[in-house]
Amino acid sequence: MNFSLTYDKETKELIQNRINFTSKRINILPEQLRAVFPHLLETEMKFKMNEDISSYIDHTLLKPDATKEQIKQLCQEAIDNKFYAVCVNSNRVKEAFEFLGKNSVQLAAVVGFPLGVTDTNCKIFETETAIDNGATEIDMVINVGRLKDEEYFEVLSDIREVVKSVDESVKVKVILETCLLTKELIVDACILSVIGGASFVKTSTGFSQGGAKVEDVRLMKLVVGDLAEVKASGGVRSYEDAMKMIANGATRIGTSSGVKISKEKNDVKQNQIDSISDQNLNRNSSSSSFVNPKIALCGAFLTAAISGFFAGYVYQQNSQNSNKKNPKKKK
Amino acid sequence: MNFSLTYDKETKELIQNRINFTSKRINILPEQLRAVFPHLLETEMKFKMNEDISSYIDHTLLKPDATKEQIKQLCQEAIDNKFYAVCVNSNRVKEAFEFLGKNSVQLAAVVGFPLGVTDTNCKIFETETAIDNGATEIDMVINVGRLKDEEYFEVLSDIREVVKSVDESVKVKVILETCLLTKELIVDACILSVIGGASFVKTSTGFSQGGAKVEDVRLMKLVVGDLAEVKASGGVRSYEDAMKMIANGATRIGTSSGVKISKEKNDVKQNQIDSISDQNLNRNSSSSSFVNPKIALCGAFLTAAISGFFAGYVYQQNSQNSNKKNPKKKK
Repeated sequence: MNFSLTYDKETKELIQNRINFTSKRINILPEQLRAVFPHLLETEMKFKMNEDISSYIDHTLLKPDATKEQIKQLCQEAIDNKFYAVCVNSNRVKEAFEFLGKNSVQLAAVVGFPLGVTDTNCKIFETETAIDNGATEIDMVINVGRLKDEEYFEVLSDIREVVKSVDESVKVKVILETCLLTKELIVDACILSVIGGASFVKTSTGFSQGGAKVEDVRLMKLVVGDLAEVKASGGVRSYEDAMKMIANGATRIGTSSGVKISKEKNDVKQNQIDSISDQNLNRNSSSSSFVNPKIALCGAFLTAAISGFFAGYVYQQNSQNSNKKNPKKKK
Repeated sequence: MNFSLTYDKETKELIQNRINFTSKRINILPEQLRAVFPHLLETEMKFKMNEDISSYIDHTLLKPDATKEQIKQLCQEAIDNKFYAVCVNSNRVKEAFEFLGKNSVQLAAVVGFPLGVTDTNCKIFETETAIDNGATEIDMVINVGRLKDEEYFEVLSDIREVVKSVDESVKVKVILETCLLTKELIVDACILSVIGGASFVKTSTGFSQGGAKVEDVRLMKLVVGDLAEVKASGGVRSYEDAMKMIANGATRIGTSSGVKISKEKNDVKQNQIDSISDQNLNRNSSSSSFVNPKIALCGAFLTAAISGFFAGYVYQQNSQNSNKKNPKKKK
């Protein structure tokens, strides 16, 4: 299945304005930051859904009173349904690792969850503990308060230090908690996540005032292009919900309803898929994918350049903060 | 103002049964555990309210999107109203410490908040970071999932290790999240908190399905006696609410409505106080306080004895967990 998103004038202006705004906050030239996001020069973004919906699902159980038995069931369901990952609280990583055994299901641990307001060093410590216990992905919460205070260097450093604390094979997802943010701050958070080296931007914790919205997922995808992926989470409870998110750019769905979604997928009729397409599912016969290697390479190169630019500042920040523990690469 | 709580037969039986149950789970003799709680032999518990309600208030702001300006205002209000403490997320401790300056207002940081499901080592690291940044009290969340799984050694160790990581002058409050617990588990959590060395048991995070209930506060007070204090938090928004909690044993109120409560206190009429007393505010002319020095000493002695009993196990647990960082006393 092929999808496309269009850069309407309003969205393009919004993103460009926020690139200018963010560049000032993090003290680099707007053109340097713009160069990281060359896809903003395009008018359309195309992408495909090649695989079964099961492979999009992070099967999730984050309730504080979840029992060991429920974690075991979660893992078994993920194995049985070939979900991409399970997503658990950090204190359950060790058990989930055992329950998953040698299956290919990935193991995501949440960090700084769900408020995002622990110190960066605590997020690093929690990340490293989770990785040591078997986690293969980290879903960290952004520092929303500092984002609102426009302390963008601190927000960037928070993300960057967590990313730096893990091996490159570990995907770090940054949870924005979109329900607490304006459109402007969603764009800024996406920019900072990309520069910070995150593999994903993710909508929601599921513990705040709201979950994933189609329009937020679309906006996030339009900002990050193929420099990062988008995870829709919070309130995604049906196959139809999930397909809407995927049609708008999500490549991962965080949900506790994975089993239900898989079952519904098997029941769904073509006309239901058609009805989804009315809302934003453009089916193109074209087989061209959005992943334009040239753009990807250009983005990667510039990200590396910008990263170098920040290195001095971030290192200084880190030196001040990490007197307790030196973050080190894992594996 | 003097208050009293009565041990009705049903409550006494409940607590005694739970002492038996808990003692088995943590592998000690029931009579050893019973000896820690000699006040359960009494029929009544008396206590006083000597000070102004302001001195009962932990002025609280834990929203993830709280700004620096809001934290500043919180601190100023606490100073102006002579509240006992402010309570903030750990990433705001440094700023709150600066805003409070040399005022006597205490600085409480939440840890493992609000889910309680980070590893013990992460809670220790977060605690030590908060203390380093100026926190004088720690409000940690109990591991509810492990409580439900009846892994009482793990729950106890989690509390104990956090308590051990701070100086004796630092009060550690254990948040039970009572809305997720049965009466039985509330009693067990209180027992484990006392044995773990907590200064307080606290009802709620304010981020779950419910807040402080009068009946839970009373039950918690009847279990802990004067071996610990009780903090009522979550949904306490008026002077009347606060007074009900205090009349049932709370000596600390966690609320974001501290200023409103203080103002209402000044407006309140005697007949309103009388109406509160109908619900559970017994006014005794007696000046005797519950704090019976003999019982207190006995309790303290036995706590020490029991602590020694656990030391081996807890040490072993700690050795397994703390390969990353040795918790050390602060100050």
